Amino acid sequence: NEIDIAVIPGDGIGPEVVTEAVKVLKFVTNGGKQDVKLTYYKLGAEHWLETGETLPDETLASIKQHDAILFGAVGAAPGDTRIPSGIIEREMLLKLRFSLDHYVNLRPSKLYPGIESPLSNPGAIDFIVVREGTEGPYVGNGGSVRTGTSHEIATEVSVNTAYGVERVVRDAFRRASERERKHVTLVHKHNVLVHAGHLWKRTVEAVAVEFPEVTHDYLHVDAATIFLTTDPSRFDVIVTDNLFGDILTDQAGAITGGIGLAASGNINMDRTYPSMFEPVHGSAPDIAGQQKADPTAAILSVALMLDHLGLSEEARSVEQAVEKEITSRQELTDNRTTSEIGDAIVALLA
Amino acid sequence: NEIDIAVIPGDGIGPEVVTEAVKVLKFVTNGGKQDVKLTYYKLGAEHWLETGETLPDETLASIKQHDAILFGAVGAAPGDTRIPSGIIEREMLLKLRFSLDHYVNLRPSKLYPGIESPLSNPGAIDFIVVREGTEGPYVGNGGSVRTGTSHEIATEVSVNTAYGVERVVRDAFRRASERERKHVTLVHKHNVLVHAGHLWKRTVEAVAVEFPEVTHDYLHVDAATIFLTTDPSRFDVIVTDNLFGDILTDQAGAITGGIGLAASGNINMDRTYPSMFEPVHGSAPDIAGQQKADPTAAILSVALMLDHLGLSEEARSVEQAVEKEITSRQELTDNRTTSEIGDAIVALLA
Ligand SMILES: CC(C)[C@H](C(=O)O)[C@@H](O)C(=O)O
Ligand SMILES: CC(C)[C@H](C(=O)O)[C@@H](O)C(=O)O
Repeated sequence: NEIDIAVIPGDGIGPEVVTEAVKVLKFVTNGGKQDVKLTYYKLGAEHWLETGETLPDETLASIKQHDAILFGAVGAAPGDTRIPSGIIEREMLLKLRFSLDHYVNLRPSKLYPGIESPLSNPGAIDFIVVREGTEGPYVGNGGSVRTGTSHEIATEVSVNTAYGVERVVRDAFRRASERERKHVTLVHKHNVLVHAGHLWKRTVEAVAVEFPEVTHDYLHVDAATIFLTTDPSRFDVIVTDNLFGDILTDQAGAITGGIGLAASGNINMDRTYPSMFEPVHGSAPDIAGQQKADPTAAILSVALMLDHLGLSEEARSVEQAVEKEITSRQELTDNRTTSEIGDAIVALLA
Repeated sequence: NEIDIAVIPGDGIGPEVVTEAVKVLKFVTNGGKQDVKLTYYKLGAEHWLETGETLPDETLASIKQHDAILFGAVGAAPGDTRIPSGIIEREMLLKLRFSLDHYVNLRPSKLYPGIESPLSNPGAIDFIVVREGTEGPYVGNGGSVRTGTSHEIATEVSVNTAYGVERVVRDAFRRASERERKHVTLVHKHNVLVHAGHLWKRTVEAVAVEFPEVTHDYLHVDAATIFLTTDPSRFDVIVTDNLFGDILTDQAGAITGGIGLAASGNINMDRTYPSMFEPVHGSAPDIAGQQKADPTAAILSVALMLDHLGLSEEARSVEQAVEKEITSRQELTDNRTTSEIGDAIVALLA
């Protein structure tokens, strides 16, 4: 009984937070009946600088063999001009999400007791965002002509299919049906993005019929940012497209006390390829290597991974340990090192 | 010496807030040497229900003859299924913005003294968003095939041109050069939307050379929503595309105490057609006709209009009166009627 994990620590604070995530993963599974096999892959901006490789075909083929992927963070320092902008994001991170058909980009948002929100009256924030992960404006379907001249035209094409929208909408309704409030909010901008928007809207109406116990409503993306500021506890499950999901989940991270706590799963629900679990935060080159990063988001991503692998008891243990650890924090400015926080969570698991 | 204004009160609370805006406009100009000629146009969801018209060609031609447009709000009640969704927005409001080449969608964001922000530590918020108004994903350049089947594909094309991006970026730098902090932040998502994003980035670099006194930086749109939550006072001038601008300005409205105060100008800087000034808020059908709406955003839009018409002294008077009025508010739950607030501002102008 073994789980076989690909580990991609990546750049910046990635390796540090992944070290703690692995610590927790090993501890929680060895207490049970699982053996964990870890295979490390060196990928990211650093790796690109050394080798010129983003994600070679053989590496991708090898990664596909594992049960799941634990991912740290990638990205060079903002000022680093040696790396073509966005190349690691697109040719590595997004290539993984697209090649492995990670159509459910799951991002829970919760305001933990003891964590201070930048909102003065946040209420009880506890929602999940089901962000579509394989379509929308992220497909890379754009181009430019007369590039660099005063007659340049640059386009970006958002591609949305019934197949792609339906599977993620159904996933959102299923998740909602298992939650207490059982409510789905579709976020889009169908008054302007008519064609994509109406596909989403029609799909939600159709899938809703299969889940009579789940209620649903609709918000334009601009209005959603207002509600995330003035009344975030209204949300239970948000389902939205790839780009709107990117935007809203960063805002959601901010209102719940910072993306240092925000976990995510890039999930292939059909299990044709391994799913990938990663903190929402980036590589934060400014604090890298200093043991200043909070590993909590990476550790909560391990909980999402355990859930996906059917180890829900272990997943709950990790979540509860994290919740206890967070609640015990005296103040937001936490001076403990990355590994001290990891150790504290392991101690609570013991 | 006459200014000739087209007035489009629209739906819901539109007529109520426009009545107050007109009251202020008349007062501030008759105190000076201006005569104001007002021509009212009945347009919007109500008008569509009566006539089936959104914006007939003759009406558009007639509107083009005026010096500027004062716009209330349009949109039917959310549950009203008699009106095809988004038709008024696209065939009336967006048609005006596009036909009249309103390429600068100017949206100032300011936290007034006495107004409570939903952020516990908002700092001094005072920035403007220069939102591109005639391109991007708003061009209506999408479509769908196999619509309504399980094989549907729906696309939305964001169209960006060097011509369109450069003129709005130059406008943002010019506005920044006249402000105290002289700083421009480009917001985009160039790590994913490569072609459009790089056109924007290259354009900012090129235009920046013409404004050596203006500094500039770049944020991905997801990160921008975080900073709008955690550190909004970092912003001075944001320049961004049509869709990102839509999203960020609603969030900006929320953090500055609600879009009841947020004004906007849809500006044609070349003056080939009249510019249009409107509150950012919608028609709010739920409170329409009850004198509950705050007319401040509409009145501040008059100030933007006066500025555009070269009446900057009158514009400053309106702004100062509004600022005084807001500061004097004892609490956010303001029980005065729409017209009482208008009267209070007029009294402060006297
Ligand atoms: C790094 C970037 C490509 C990525 C995205 O836009 O999806 C990130 O912002 C995220 O949210 O995971
Ligand atoms: C009503 C809608 C078309 C409009 C937009 O998306 O621009 C509105 O949200 C705005 O911001 O003025």
